[in-house]
Amino acid sequence: MSGCLMKASDAELAASRVMARCDALAEISESVGKLTRVYLSPEHMRANTLVGEWMKAAGMQVWQDSVGNICGRYEAAEAGAPALLLGSHLDTVRNAGRYDGMLGVLTAIETVQYLYQHQLRLPLAIEIVGFGDEEGTRFGITLLGSRGLTGSWPQSWVSHPDGNSITVADAMADVGLDAANISQAAREVSEIVAYLELHIEQGPCLEQADLALGVVTAINGARRLNCRFTGEAGHAGTVPMTHRKDALAAAAEWMVHIESSTPQHHPQLVATVGTLQCSPGAVNVIPGEVSLTLDVRGPEDPPLEALLSALLTQAEAIAQRRGLTFHAEEFYRIGATRCDAPLQAALTQAVTQVQGSSLSLPSGAGHDAIAIAERWPVGMLFVRCDRGISHNPAESVTRSDVAKAIQAYLQVVHDVAQRGDIAAADATIFSPA
Amino acid sequence: MSGCLMKASDAELAASRVMARCDALAEISESVGKLTRVYLSPEHMRANTLVGEWMKAAGMQVWQDSVGNICGRYEAAEAGAPALLLGSHLDTVRNAGRYDGMLGVLTAIETVQYLYQHQLRLPLAIEIVGFGDEEGTRFGITLLGSRGLTGSWPQSWVSHPDGNSITVADAMADVGLDAANISQAAREVSEIVAYLELHIEQGPCLEQADLALGVVTAINGARRLNCRFTGEAGHAGTVPMTHRKDALAAAAEWMVHIESSTPQHHPQLVATVGTLQCSPGAVNVIPGEVSLTLDVRGPEDPPLEALLSALLTQAEAIAQRRGLTFHAEEFYRIGATRCDAPLQAALTQAVTQVQGSSLSLPSGAGHDAIAIAERWPVGMLFVRCDRGISHNPAESVTRSDVAKAIQAYLQVVHDVAQRGDIAAADATIFSPA
Repeated sequence: MSGCLMKASDAELAASRVMARCDALAEISESVGKLTRVYLSPEHMRANTLVGEWMKAAGMQVWQDSVGNICGRYEAAEAGAPALLLGSHLDTVRNAGRYDGMLGVLTAIETVQYLYQHQLRLPLAIEIVGFGDEEGTRFGITLLGSRGLTGSWPQSWVSHPDGNSITVADAMADVGLDAANISQAAREVSEIVAYLELHIEQGPCLEQADLALGVVTAINGARRLNCRFTGEAGHAGTVPMTHRKDALAAAAEWMVHIESSTPQHHPQLVATVGTLQCSPGAVNVIPGEVSLTLDVRGPEDPPLEALLSALLTQAEAIAQRRGLTFHAEEFYRIGATRCDAPLQAALTQAVTQVQGSSLSLPSGAGHDAIAIAERWPVGMLFVRCDRGISHNPAESVTRSDVAKAIQAYLQVVHDVAQRGDIAAADATIFSPA
Repeated sequence: MSGCLMKASDAELAASRVMARCDALAEISESVGKLTRVYLSPEHMRANTLVGEWMKAAGMQVWQDSVGNICGRYEAAEAGAPALLLGSHLDTVRNAGRYDGMLGVLTAIETVQYLYQHQLRLPLAIEIVGFGDEEGTRFGITLLGSRGLTGSWPQSWVSHPDGNSITVADAMADVGLDAANISQAAREVSEIVAYLELHIEQGPCLEQADLALGVVTAINGARRLNCRFTGEAGHAGTVPMTHRKDALAAAAEWMVHIESSTPQHHPQLVATVGTLQCSPGAVNVIPGEVSLTLDVRGPEDPPLEALLSALLTQAEAIAQRRGLTFHAEEFYRIGATRCDAPLQAALTQAVTQVQGSSLSLPSGAGHDAIAIAERWPVGMLFVRCDRGISHNPAESVTRSDVAKAIQAYLQVVHDVAQRGDIAAADATIFSPA
């Protein structure tokens, strides 16, 4: 057994502290009894202060960057060495769970805490970042924290308003930040070697596999479309089945096709019709028009594009055969993010060491790692959550899973940071995604 | 060629008058430019007055009955003989067409006008009724006019409120009627031999068959149900296709089955899903619950029941196989009304005489004949309408179709009323439906 494996009893203690800290952060909310903490709010600042104190207690130098991320650095054996960056986000959706994001920041602090307690200094510094915005709850634009670090904020973001017409720039000023300094949050590529993120799975795969931990292969790319079948409304009693141009019947045929053909394209592709409206929408009227949304996702872009194209071709064919028309308009698109292969290997090794086996799976949800992958190699560690429930107060993880997560996280941080100098010399180990 | 066939030139003249009278009635509306005329309104009374004048001009004795139907009698050769009753309704839906109902009353007046002009008296009297309520637009309860005639008003109807909390009884008083006298509208079974109704088809079958006229075999029975598939909402990105309990996917599978299996049960059955709601209903969330309505109709009750039962069994099977639940609740049911076979034969003969062939078809929509069939044999003559459009200002018929309709109507009225004394003696000719 190689590396730096935390004793089970130490891991249990660390996990208890993480659980308690998740509870403490969950108290920092804009509304009592419901966790909502959005970017550039007073609660954001309070959370940063608290997390910053925990970082300091773990021997880290702490600062808040110019876009409101809370950052800490645990110095390398040689001061000024490049860093292995660990992180996740501290903002939440409305009426959120207490682990989505926060678990990744707090477990990262535990890995540094361990190194600090054992007076271990590694070839790489360990930096931790608690991103101020991943969810986009307040401004409807996402990954503001991590895009601050990569220096890829579009110019337009500063004037983007929240629901109360407060712009990002004004909201920054409200918490003592200055939109003129946003670019100061950007890090030099040479300062960071790689990025690791621990996150709850937000899906059911680990639970189904009876495993606490898994390794992310890619963060799914996604396409979202507004679709519409247009037929002819008619009297539900007087128009024979053979004379109908029923838009809902056409949509139903398409939805059955979507469900059956998607996994045939690739087992890791998913396609969802999440909304559907009938017009005119009366019990005794044949629907003349149906609007529905299509959401397709997958860990690689080419099969995702192929699926989408096949689904749209099929919709056209269904419409044409029935004498209807079909229209689709893409309104959202994000490419797939591949996790770095050597980091996946290191994570798999650490996870296998802790729980005997590992599971590689794509991430269906988006993460800060999407933005970070624009500059640096990224790796992600998933922790099982109860029934895959997330974005919900019922979001839940077990202390024992968190203990295993901390063990694996420490192991991989230690491994990667030990090899840090090699990494800097050998680009093949940390090839950009 | 037997019977009483109106010359084409006379029929054209009569049709022109009917078209002009439909236009005149369309002016009697609660709102300018949009035809809406509801039961017990001032417009209802004005329409009754106008139609009553037209009846008088056709040599009829005219009265308004105690529920507000306008009635006329053209005496038989022998005064006090039983009557052949012709009729349809004078009320409308909101923003209605001008032929639904009215065409049946005005063409009936033309048949009497012809007999009167030619001084023809028949063994049966001819009575015409313009029913005050068929659509149920004002009170949400339907067939109030025809159920007045059959004496089958439930006690509860008088206290039923409209949208402004005015009860039927109060609305009656507003137009000088007395709810205490409702039963006086009921006719003795012996006073009427049979009922004929001419109506626009409100569907596309005659147009598709390139025929002006058709004969109704039955008025479809109907069942309406609120249905619900309950599965499990989930993240559209994180739950693999194989792990989903997608309520919309289940509903789609059922809808495809409904569409394909309904005509296999019987070509004249129809089934419609007219409304569908997804919950939670977001582009990136797998629908956990889908509510939808099912409307099934058919000209005979046993196959309709068999279809409905098979569809519900299939829904249960789909839900069970997918690990979902299915719930259905019937909220509306009306039995099928068979049209009298000898009346169908007489109508078919008359239609064939006029247009060279006939088409027998069920009525998908409800009509006053449903109520009348509780007491007397009923027959219905359908007239083609443009694209089957009805309950819409675009509702349209051609003058030349109306001319044919008047010719056929006069023919069948003459035939049936000529045989009236036989009918009274021989119950097999006019067997109750």
